[in-house]
Amino acid sequence: MDVRQLLEAVKTDEIDIDTAVNKLKDLPYEDLGYANIDHHRELRNGFPEVIYCEGKTDEHIIGIVDVLLKKQSNVLGTRCRKETAEKLKEIYDNVEYDELSRVLMIKNHEIKNRGKGTIAILAAGTSDISVADEAYYTAKFLGNNVERIYDVGVAGIHRLLNKRHLIEQARVVVAVAGMEGALPSVVGGMVDVPVIAVPTSVGYGASFNGLTALLAMLNSCASGISVVNIDNGFGAGYLAATINKLK
Amino acid sequence: MDVRQLLEAVKTDEIDIDTAVNKLKDLPYEDLGYANIDHHRELRNGFPEVIYCEGKTDEHIIGIVDVLLKKQSNVLGTRCRKETAEKLKEIYDNVEYDELSRVLMIKNHEIKNRGKGTIAILAAGTSDISVADEAYYTAKFLGNNVERIYDVGVAGIHRLLNKRHLIEQARVVVAVAGMEGALPSVVGGMVDVPVIAVPTSVGYGASFNGLTALLAMLNSCASGISVVNIDNGFGAGYLAATINKLK
Amino acid sequence: MDVRQLLEAVKTDEIDIDTAVNKLKDLPYEDLGYANIDHHRELRNGFPEVIYCEGKTDEHIIGIVDVLLKKQSNVLGTRCRKETAEKLKEIYDNVEYDELSRVLMIKNHEIKNRGKGTIAILAAGTSDISVADEAYYTAKFLGNNVERIYDVGVAGIHRLLNKRHLIEQARVVVAVAGMEGALPSVVGGMVDVPVIAVPTSVGYGASFNGLTALLAMLNSCASGISVVNIDNGFGAGYLAATINKLK
Amino acid sequence: MDVRQLLEAVKTDEIDIDTAVNKLKDLPYEDLGYANIDHHRELRNGFPEVIYCEGKTDEHIIGIVDVLLKKQSNVLGTRCRKETAEKLKEIYDNVEYDELSRVLMIKNHEIKNRGKGTIAILAAGTSDISVADEAYYTAKFLGNNVERIYDVGVAGIHRLLNKRHLIEQARVVVAVAGMEGALPSVVGGMVDVPVIAVPTSVGYGASFNGLTALLAMLNSCASGISVVNIDNGFGAGYLAATINKLK
Amino acid sequence: MDVRQLLEAVKTDEIDIDTAVNKLKDLPYEDLGYANIDHHRELRNGFPEVIYCEGKTDEHIIGIVDVLLKKQSNVLGTRCRKETAEKLKEIYDNVEYDELSRVLMIKNHEIKNRGKGTIAILAAGTSDISVADEAYYTAKFLGNNVERIYDVGVAGIHRLLNKRHLIEQARVVVAVAGMEGALPSVVGGMVDVPVIAVPTSVGYGASFNGLTALLAMLNSCASGISVVNIDNGFGAGYLAATINKLK
Amino acid sequence: MDVRQLLEAVKTDEIDIDTAVNKLKDLPYEDLGYANIDHHRELRNGFPEVIYCEGKTDEHIIGIVDVLLKKQSNVLGTRCRKETAEKLKEIYDNVEYDELSRVLMIKNHEIKNRGKGTIAILAAGTSDISVADEAYYTAKFLGNNVERIYDVGVAGIHRLLNKRHLIEQARVVVAVAGMEGALPSVVGGMVDVPVIAVPTSVGYGASFNGLTALLAMLNSCASGISVVNIDNGFGAGYLAATINKLK
Amino acid sequence: MDVRQLLEAVKTDEIDIDTAVNKLKDLPYEDLGYANIDHHRELRNGFPEVIYCEGKTDEHIIGIVDVLLKKQSNVLGTRCRKETAEKLKEIYDNVEYDELSRVLMIKNHEIKNRGKGTIAILAAGTSDISVADEAYYTAKFLGNNVERIYDVGVAGIHRLLNKRHLIEQARVVVAVAGMEGALPSVVGGMVDVPVIAVPTSVGYGASFNGLTALLAMLNSCASGISVVNIDNGFGAGYLAATINKLK
Amino acid sequence: MDVRQLLEAVKTDEIDIDTAVNKLKDLPYEDLGYANIDHHRELRNGFPEVIYCEGKTDEHIIGIVDVLLKKQSNVLGTRCRKETAEKLKEIYDNVEYDELSRVLMIKNHEIKNRGKGTIAILAAGTSDISVADEAYYTAKFLGNNVERIYDVGVAGIHRLLNKRHLIEQARVVVAVAGMEGALPSVVGGMVDVPVIAVPTSVGYGASFNGLTALLAMLNSCASGISVVNIDNGFGAGYLAATINKLK
Repeated sequence: MDVRQLLEAVKTDEIDIDTAVNKLKDLPYEDLGYANIDHHRELRNGFPEVIYCEGKTDEHIIGIVDVLLKKQSNVLGTRCRKETAEKLKEIYDNVEYDELSRVLMIKNHEIKNRGKGTIAILAAGTSDISVADEAYYTAKFLGNNVERIYDVGVAGIHRLLNKRHLIEQARVVVAVAGMEGALPSVVGGMVDVPVIAVPTSVGYGASFNGLTALLAMLNSCASGISVVNIDNGFGAGYLAATINKLK
Repeated sequence: MDVRQLLEAVKTDEIDIDTAVNKLKDLPYEDLGYANIDHHRELRNGFPEVIYCEGKTDEHIIGIVDVLLKKQSNVLGTRCRKETAEKLKEIYDNVEYDELSRVLMIKNHEIKNRGKGTIAILAAGTSDISVADEAYYTAKFLGNNVERIYDVGVAGIHRLLNKRHLIEQARVVVAVAGMEGALPSVVGGMVDVPVIAVPTSVGYGASFNGLTALLAMLNSCASGISVVNIDNGFGAGYLAATINKLK
Repeated sequence: MDVRQLLEAVKTDEIDIDTAVNKLKDLPYEDLGYANIDHHRELRNGFPEVIYCEGKTDEHIIGIVDVLLKKQSNVLGTRCRKETAEKLKEIYDNVEYDELSRVLMIKNHEIKNRGKGTIAILAAGTSDISVADEAYYTAKFLGNNVERIYDVGVAGIHRLLNKRHLIEQARVVVAVAGMEGALPSVVGGMVDVPVIAVPTSVGYGASFNGLTALLAMLNSCASGISVVNIDNGFGAGYLAATINKLK
Repeated sequence: MDVRQLLEAVKTDEIDIDTAVNKLKDLPYEDLGYANIDHHRELRNGFPEVIYCEGKTDEHIIGIVDVLLKKQSNVLGTRCRKETAEKLKEIYDNVEYDELSRVLMIKNHEIKNRGKGTIAILAAGTSDISVADEAYYTAKFLGNNVERIYDVGVAGIHRLLNKRHLIEQARVVVAVAGMEGALPSVVGGMVDVPVIAVPTSVGYGASFNGLTALLAMLNSCASGISVVNIDNGFGAGYLAATINKLK
Repeated sequence: MDVRQLLEAVKTDEIDIDTAVNKLKDLPYEDLGYANIDHHRELRNGFPEVIYCEGKTDEHIIGIVDVLLKKQSNVLGTRCRKETAEKLKEIYDNVEYDELSRVLMIKNHEIKNRGKGTIAILAAGTSDISVADEAYYTAKFLGNNVERIYDVGVAGIHRLLNKRHLIEQARVVVAVAGMEGALPSVVGGMVDVPVIAVPTSVGYGASFNGLTALLAMLNSCASGISVVNIDNGFGAGYLAATINKLK
Repeated sequence: MDVRQLLEAVKTDEIDIDTAVNKLKDLPYEDLGYANIDHHRELRNGFPEVIYCEGKTDEHIIGIVDVLLKKQSNVLGTRCRKETAEKLKEIYDNVEYDELSRVLMIKNHEIKNRGKGTIAILAAGTSDISVADEAYYTAKFLGNNVERIYDVGVAGIHRLLNKRHLIEQARVVVAVAGMEGALPSVVGGMVDVPVIAVPTSVGYGASFNGLTALLAMLNSCASGISVVNIDNGFGAGYLAATINKLK
Repeated sequence: MDVRQLLEAVKTDEIDIDTAVNKLKDLPYEDLGYANIDHHRELRNGFPEVIYCEGKTDEHIIGIVDVLLKKQSNVLGTRCRKETAEKLKEIYDNVEYDELSRVLMIKNHEIKNRGKGTIAILAAGTSDISVADEAYYTAKFLGNNVERIYDVGVAGIHRLLNKRHLIEQARVVVAVAGMEGALPSVVGGMVDVPVIAVPTSVGYGASFNGLTALLAMLNSCASGISVVNIDNGFGAGYLAATINKLK
Repeated sequence: MDVRQLLEAVKTDEIDIDTAVNKLKDLPYEDLGYANIDHHRELRNGFPEVIYCEGKTDEHIIGIVDVLLKKQSNVLGTRCRKETAEKLKEIYDNVEYDELSRVLMIKNHEIKNRGKGTIAILAAGTSDISVADEAYYTAKFLGNNVERIYDVGVAGIHRLLNKRHLIEQARVVVAVAGMEGALPSVVGGMVDVPVIAVPTSVGYGASFNGLTALLAMLNSCASGISVVNIDNGFGAGYLAATINKLK
């Protein structure tokens, strides 16, 4: 019995009001429509379904893809092993895979542009590109114009300054850096839009697998900056898309 | 000699082009107008001047306020001691001070609303209010409609769910929590707008002055979340305002 | 309009079913009765109201006590300053205060015994007593027989073994220790009932304010042990009472 | 000479009392019956023997299993390698092995139900299932009715709320979560029974292999919660069984 | 009933052997003489009683001193506040107090020399003297010849080498150092006797209150070195005395 | 249009001064000559090009080497895999590779001596040689006389003292050590020249992969010392060369 | 008997060679002249005596000053309390004290310039000035031309670029910064001289009293940088002076 | 020219005293006999040569063994790979290798007993045996009677108490434990001789590879305990031997 049926039973006196009040307390939220949020939120906001592949078996991933494709969803897979991607290519059409960022994409219908402006994704060094590209493909897949501006680390400040106009045109900036993680601080001082800082595990010794970059970004002396988890390119791309679709 | 004078000297053959090229390399960026960005950025984007008072003497703070008020700026002071606020009240008009959040405000002209939507500021517990209110006053002072939704910690999940509609109407959400820092994860699953997570130093023992809440927020299983430094209410309010004024 | 009114309006055709379905989605959970859990849970399970006093002003605490006493609740206050306790004694009758554990108790009606067995509270050293007593008063106030067995640290193992029979008679054991935090491991090997381990900040140098004891307890080689936060006597007492009232 | 022989020698004047007093001091505790506790405690409390297989060679494990089976024990092995399980299957009957949780079970006689109520085991995400299932098989093997409620992470709060009634029927709750470890806090606010929190090493970057979830759980703002070591599904299952067999 | 009485009752057939066996299991260990170890160990090994004063009230300390003096013990108090020492001086004779090391000594009878050789106590810098002197007074009070060799930090290696002969004559060496904690490594390479390394909290910044010195000492490339807790001069002095009284 | 062209256009009245001022603001810094610093700094200061090979594919490295060799640069590669080195040897002449330090060198023209004095590189133990040799080859390749003084750890202080004269002749000292990292402190007390301390990841247990050595070096009680990242032999060699070429 | 006397005794046959060889082994190094290095090193290299005042009593400090002034030394005191400085002013002439940096200076004779070039001291923010000034006064007192360039944090990159020429003229650069500690990375990319990075404890929350800045600086992506302890302005000034006096 | 030659030259007026004084300053310490200590210390104190094999190539190890065997030394190798041991067995006679503890022994002459008493080596669990046996073989090889007492973890306290008499007979105790590291605290309360605590990396999750056991041992509430590095069985065995040979 769902909510509508319950209400009709009240209306036709099949059940009395006290019983109905008690039953309402127990109805799963889904029957009240809250589960729509759970099941359809992604479709509503126009974002494709996302599968975090790490720690899932190939069978598991194929199972989920199967369900999503039946719903005609576009599918985005992050941290996807190459072997998994190859298995999926054998089964489905339209499978694309970027080896460096380990992003898997299945496009069943064209991606509609949902962002109002451009997202600029900056990477400090070439080793940061795998994370930056995860942000790039995520933001693209969520329907955004994305500009990649790579190898603009602060130890060669002019490389960054040379790109200033490109950066200033963005509506959201994602700044990816490992080691000392200083890029967001400099960028944060250059623009008036939100800067999403992504620390990477690039470095050695006292970089502690990205902890140093993470801490540095959290302590930025520039305003308008916030931080996501180490190597979380997906999170940055998703948040950038969330901001960029604000009307 | 500034840039204009230099160009005029070139035009009138007072100096030759080789000399001019060299001189241009040396001219302070300010002369090229870049320093406008430094000195006037805040005014341009409509944000008042902000003074971080911690670690500054009263004399220092009064000196800065003096300069800003001569520019007819509104002034926002964060982490301001009560004694400093009282000294400022004796000198200037229009000084307001909120003791709990230690925010100082001097309003010389009305704050123009620059935000397109509402910013919702959530606090998990009553002890988090001092940080949440720093975000509140910051966002207000930067020209935003701000809704405060306090004492909605996850251990009493229905208090939070009861406020769902208020939260869903916001264009940006700031979620402030100490201890286990779980609030942003639950909120992040409820809304489709950016969530700025603010860990606080509220707690004891293994909360390690907010480190636990910080780490928890960085590892949130919800998407669309980013994090600022521990107790950084100002940073969250500023970033919320930066997002909310995006057109 | 609450749920009952809504159902009556459906029954009398004042509103149609579609409208009712939509309204139900928006009704605060409290109207569905969920808030009862929030507001009355403590009364239902027989536990008195608890106020965590740290970080609250005297005015704040008095305000809360006022409300609770109007509901004729017994009141338990933890981490209460001595000055606050003295102010409360001037205002209310029946105020008791234990200075060492900083526990405040206001008993308006007799505490009903709700525990099925005895709770044994062990403390390794005399410096751990303040935390152990917080657990003691909490468990007492929640309606339990509690046995205190103090100064039984593992460096004098016979002191502990001498108390074996007392410990074995308990239905739940709370083991409080600072420094190397070894007590729960030894106790866990002696009894077949749940052992709640409480690390304390007692120690210096590499005790890191209780971190060492916390880590040691989490790594206990004995089974049947779980751990609460550093110095969290209240949490241990509350959990012990929760276990002891299981039927 | 054991205690009884000693006493008989006293009675028959074979040895005098001074000598007997001295001998008693030196008799191994086992002769006094204490070792019964060591050797038979598990049998007494109805729990099967448990072998922690990690770091033991196959030969070692087979040797222990051999001894236990001769005592007609049921045997539970945790963290057992697949290859070891397969070797054991070749040697013994009734060997069961769950690959995901790496739990090995040898049932020589039916497991007697010793728990008074149901144990609910909750897992936040699908990656937490290996740990949750270790708790599940442990609790089952120790003679309990166990209900598994998986994939109820807090970022989709309605999935959890939908299971509320199932959870509320449990006598003990085990809440397993990685990443930000927020599940126990929300569950702790929903039920009045003990909640055992199990942090998992699921996550990346600043999850620090489960440290973040561990710290978050220790700082839970809900009452009635305690915590075991990272990935310690066995410990949680064992403690849940210890609580559930309380009369 | 104690052990002797029990045995006599067996002998006189007052109780039968089965009953006696059961009673023996329950007799407190003290009755078996084990408590002698607890209560008299210090007297037996010739070491005076030691009171760790930190975290004890003056009343508490005076109470303990009272009991000990009735047993005619010498008394050693560590980490004793100056005010407490002054109170004790008013009450008792023979009270000595060293302000820098906060060591309190009450000598009721002459200290008998129990050490076979000399204990050398080295301090790297003048700021380490408070800890070194705690070791010094402890070792003296436990009946040892002690040689103090201070201000021999490794950055002026010749100061240390100049003292080589003094150091080489010791039977046990205590090496106290803060900051980088390098002293024990150099000393460990110079002597063939046990070296007890004591890290101190002397330093700032990345000394982390002695953690750096502690870690350095644990990683010493010299053999024959072991380490006690940060600032634990007492522990080092006690261990040195324990070694030095080995026959 | 570059700066020169702009100035000529001003001179010939092709564009007016206001336009020129605006254009100047936007010209990439490179046109102003700043990029020279970026592109040619290494050549200017006589240092060869350096490739940090870790995390770069063989194709990537070969591509960079190709470009550099076209500029007739000498090439230094650090952290180069053996396989990569072998591939390069097949393609290019003059390729040298040191397996222990993983340094790759391609010398197209003789290295000019640019250092005024000698650089002494000290290593505490034989396990530190791989890092020390990275510093050695780096400093050699940057044009310095370098003296290697290895196996002079502080636990055998006379080995170090025996080398005193060699060390005192250096203009810069690099001190490489793992474990407790004490070498720089002793050396810093022996010389009046800059000492660059290099912690290595040599050790186990509480050496935490070099963290202990790093912290110890930062807390050195000797003056004139500074520290680089763990295992950063290249950084130390580069800095030593930078100091040694100071005129 | 000192070395010279020993040799004369050998020469005059007062003692035979075997005896002399043995005596030489035992003579304190000071007699061999090594202690000269200890006692006179500072005077030889022209550096004044330095007293680290933290943790020393006023009496202690005055005692040391007394001795030094008798040797006609200039005296530099770091981390000196204001009250100590005032006491010293009452006793001695020529006492100068800088309150912000807590540097005490007693100049008995003019400071001779020993540096070949200029030392540039950069500070990121105004709160870093106390540490930067400790470096400044130290370097000045050790005989150097020092240029202070303050408030050039990377979030306003043009402020830093505007000072480029000043910075490029230095022979050694000291870069002082708290919070994210990014300044040395940017400066390191701008100059070809050694950069000494000084992390400060300026910041809050996840700055962990300077740990974040320290780690960031150790992981700098720029070359030619090394790091000293948190807030160690003295160490940086001393090292800068050591480098700057290299011939 | 060595010291003797120098003295003879003085005696015969070949060189004057001033020259001799200067030359003496420069003579390597070895010429003064100090290096004897370096080269012959091990032989003098009767300890065999020890090779730490980790991080050394087989060639390297064989080279060292070769030299030592030429000196007719017994040889002890720690952390030796199985393959290395097998290579050595092919080359030399008398090679023994213990696979679990990775200890290599080459006995060329009988080991002389140098210890005055017995060393007891306790291990908490079976997984700690590899470390405990490293201590065992080390102490044996250094000439001691060693008693192994394994599997006496504190969670089954009676197993430990049953071995009390064995433990009490030792002159030195080594206590090896992982996980919560509680064994030394209990043992320290049972004996009056030095206890050397060895933390092991046995455990998982919050054991942090032995850090928890290390910290627990440093904070032991028992006296007479000191600690060596994680898994440092060799260090404990060596120190135990150093103590046990004290006369």
